[in-house]
Amino acid sequence: MASKFYAVVIGAGPGTGRAAAIRFSKAYPVVLLSRSSKSYEATVKEINDAGGKAIGIDADASSIESLKAAFETIKKDLPDYKLAAAVFNPSARPAPKPFAEVQPEELESSIDANIRGFFNFAQKTLPLLEEAVPTSKYPPTLIVTGATASVRGSPRFSAFAAGKWAKRALTQSIAREYQPKGVHVAHAVIDGVIDIARTKSYEVNGGVEDGKIAPDSIAETYWNLHTQHRSGLTWEVDIRPFVEKW
Amino acid sequence: MASKFYAVVIGAGPGTGRAAAIRFSKAYPVVLLSRSSKSYEATVKEINDAGGKAIGIDADASSIESLKAAFETIKKDLPDYKLAAAVFNPSARPAPKPFAEVQPEELESSIDANIRGFFNFAQKTLPLLEEAVPTSKYPPTLIVTGATASVRGSPRFSAFAAGKWAKRALTQSIAREYQPKGVHVAHAVIDGVIDIARTKSYEVNGGVEDGKIAPDSIAETYWNLHTQHRSGLTWEVDIRPFVEKW
Amino acid sequence: MASKFYAVVIGAGPGTGRAAAIRFSKAYPVVLLSRSSKSYEATVKEINDAGGKAIGIDADASSIESLKAAFETIKKDLPDYKLAAAVFNPSARPAPKPFAEVQPEELESSIDANIRGFFNFAQKTLPLLEEAVPTSKYPPTLIVTGATASVRGSPRFSAFAAGKWAKRALTQSIAREYQPKGVHVAHAVIDGVIDIARTKSYEVNGGVEDGKIAPDSIAETYWNLHTQHRSGLTWEVDIRPFVEKW
Amino acid sequence: MASKFYAVVIGAGPGTGRAAAIRFSKAYPVVLLSRSSKSYEATVKEINDAGGKAIGIDADASSIESLKAAFETIKKDLPDYKLAAAVFNPSARPAPKPFAEVQPEELESSIDANIRGFFNFAQKTLPLLEEAVPTSKYPPTLIVTGATASVRGSPRFSAFAAGKWAKRALTQSIAREYQPKGVHVAHAVIDGVIDIARTKSYEVNGGVEDGKIAPDSIAETYWNLHTQHRSGLTWEVDIRPFVEKW
Repeated sequence: MASKFYAVVIGAGPGTGRAAAIRFSKAYPVVLLSRSSKSYEATVKEINDAGGKAIGIDADASSIESLKAAFETIKKDLPDYKLAAAVFNPSARPAPKPFAEVQPEELESSIDANIRGFFNFAQKTLPLLEEAVPTSKYPPTLIVTGATASVRGSPRFSAFAAGKWAKRALTQSIAREYQPKGVHVAHAVIDGVIDIARTKSYEVNGGVEDGKIAPDSIAETYWNLHTQHRSGLTWEVDIRPFVEKW
Repeated sequence: MASKFYAVVIGAGPGTGRAAAIRFSKAYPVVLLSRSSKSYEATVKEINDAGGKAIGIDADASSIESLKAAFETIKKDLPDYKLAAAVFNPSARPAPKPFAEVQPEELESSIDANIRGFFNFAQKTLPLLEEAVPTSKYPPTLIVTGATASVRGSPRFSAFAAGKWAKRALTQSIAREYQPKGVHVAHAVIDGVIDIARTKSYEVNGGVEDGKIAPDSIAETYWNLHTQHRSGLTWEVDIRPFVEKW
Repeated sequence: MASKFYAVVIGAGPGTGRAAAIRFSKAYPVVLLSRSSKSYEATVKEINDAGGKAIGIDADASSIESLKAAFETIKKDLPDYKLAAAVFNPSARPAPKPFAEVQPEELESSIDANIRGFFNFAQKTLPLLEEAVPTSKYPPTLIVTGATASVRGSPRFSAFAAGKWAKRALTQSIAREYQPKGVHVAHAVIDGVIDIARTKSYEVNGGVEDGKIAPDSIAETYWNLHTQHRSGLTWEVDIRPFVEKW
Repeated sequence: MASKFYAVVIGAGPGTGRAAAIRFSKAYPVVLLSRSSKSYEATVKEINDAGGKAIGIDADASSIESLKAAFETIKKDLPDYKLAAAVFNPSARPAPKPFAEVQPEELESSIDANIRGFFNFAQKTLPLLEEAVPTSKYPPTLIVTGATASVRGSPRFSAFAAGKWAKRALTQSIAREYQPKGVHVAHAVIDGVIDIARTKSYEVNGGVEDGKIAPDSIAETYWNLHTQHRSGLTWEVDIRPFVEKW
């Protein structure tokens, strides 16, 4: 019997998470994880209505227990499936502010979302991805969503950058360890504003059409990362609107 | 009448050039440019035999005159076509050696292939790509093949690195100027040995299967760069075998 | 009356901390902070015996309370002094291990030493450094000790790299915010083994003389950073033995 | 008899070259090389009048013959001296312009000054620096002046960036090869406008005092690089005004 495979997206709210779930659902059943079911409900319905298969589970990556429970649920719901792709997408959005005004809780929140959360999710998924290596069509893939702040420590973004750089460090370290085992680990530097409901009113890049990043375009690039041949893997891509200053 | 589009690949010898030509020929007529017809003949035949359309023209990017003549030929052969994609792939392969032993001619050869040649090719193709912006399906794209030496100055590779870093600098500068005009400019850091006839005997990565980069996998990544939505463009990708040390 | 200035070194154990304290003691009274008095006692005595002025205080940067108490002690002991230079030097040394074996506590320990600890220390010292701007001879300076792992995520060093990258991000963000106010913020990438008692038995760089970094050479570079003119400030230096591979 | 040492500065015009010559003249006789004697005359006189020793020689680094003649003159004038330090400072200043308008001659001029010129100078000086290793007080040093354009390909600066990136590549490659032999090779990214006669009218950083880089501050950092202990060498420093945006 041929192996069956699924994908998991954590941080599956509107934007990149939703788009990735939809894109990967064209090939795999998809599990959407978020702290609140409000984040994934509509997308789960949308995928299932369209003839795909999607499951939503409440999960908080910063809690090992929560993740453990989620993957036990997955095992029950998709008993014979192996993990072909995992997308880590949660983020914290601390308000930009002068360093002297950053509260310890804001730093902790960035640590929680970007470092502790990613660490837990990677520890959970990497062994599952490794199990899929011998039978999967494409190298099983862990894709991590980064930001401009992953490569630049801007003033007023200290806590955010701390979390993002650390997550990128973990991703790179893991890539160097797991790629020789056949697991593809990739990091995407999203360098621009994503076009979602929350950002509709943002005036960026002079308001030009496509001046914000279409989540679908990120999802397509994630899919293309996933389907790379193991002899030619990409560790990092940058993604930005054509009109973005960088 | 709908616009018609073509792609051009310079440095169209075996390996990346050939694979890119074949990949892009699935969507466009392709023009293969090389200093010697021996480099492109077989590929041109292969594409035409397979039902695609390919043209081979002798051209040396380090000569403005030679490039000019080549593009005049293209204009005659594909009179109503616009340029959808251009791939710059030529390289020099100076023998690694201690800095004190590098001959001025070896430095010039790296300058010629990587800097002067790319400069000329970019000046020739960017206006053509810009013309295609209003009607092309995807952002017209200039893709540049780089190497490990594009981001690292290793001992014994001084002349090679000088050319490669300069080409990457040009690519980045051009990307920042042309992307707001709708032309996608991308640079690929090929970090590994490419699997071609010349490298068959190289013992890399312990001789493991897929330890050298399949040219087709590079070509597929190039195609995926070309087809990105303009709201989510990638400037740079790295490409390496899963077992490569980096 | 002319202003009087002091320097503070946290992580003042043998190696970089001790050497920096001694170097800066040639110009300023120096305060040595460490979690245990064993780390600074000998150095405090050495400086005072040599005619300089040194004070040792127990302090743990990962505790805001502990830092607060330490700086209150400083204020009592050096009542009219302003802070001319602060060196952040504590580190965690997690044992290298496969990612799957890293314990959450090991990640937390790296977060504590490199992120939380540095964040607290920077929040405490930056306002004090800013106060010194109008009267100090050199731009008041915050110097941060980094490592190879600050710029590279190596396999088996995931937790260490996460902390180090995050600390570098904070440093860069702070530099961009505080330099325009006249406070110099600098990060040093120490790329090699430091020559201290603990590393005596390490066989590095073939055992060649000066193949490990003399702490005094780091301290001298720190001093040179501190004394830079404000029109020509360095944000980052790398420091490595002449024979180091990089 | 103790060895005697000299320093050489090429590109010894007003600004960094002049300041470096003056700074190094406090320790060594200095040779100033420039294409035109107008560039070095005043500085040579200033150093000699101040009790130092300076020699000026016409030399063009882009010509191997010219450099050869210059070093033969040095050998005659300083017969028993070894080379302790060499500073490479020439630059081209192509006018910023859109890529399509850059003339091949402008690219060649950047190649000439930054690549060919530095290559020739390095091939000439590295063997001389190597000869000084056994007897010099400090690791004999080759210092290379870079710019913002050494690490960033900005729009309108394509030709300039090509030359600067290539020079940085050569410097890095040489550093990796020569540091194990005891020769220190360092690159400085000068990220700001230098305060010289030509830039007096430039309104930068809001016209704030010290908003342009004092050449003396660069020279002091160069001297500090030169005097580093071989166990703790810096390959790269960035240098910018405290108010510079980066």
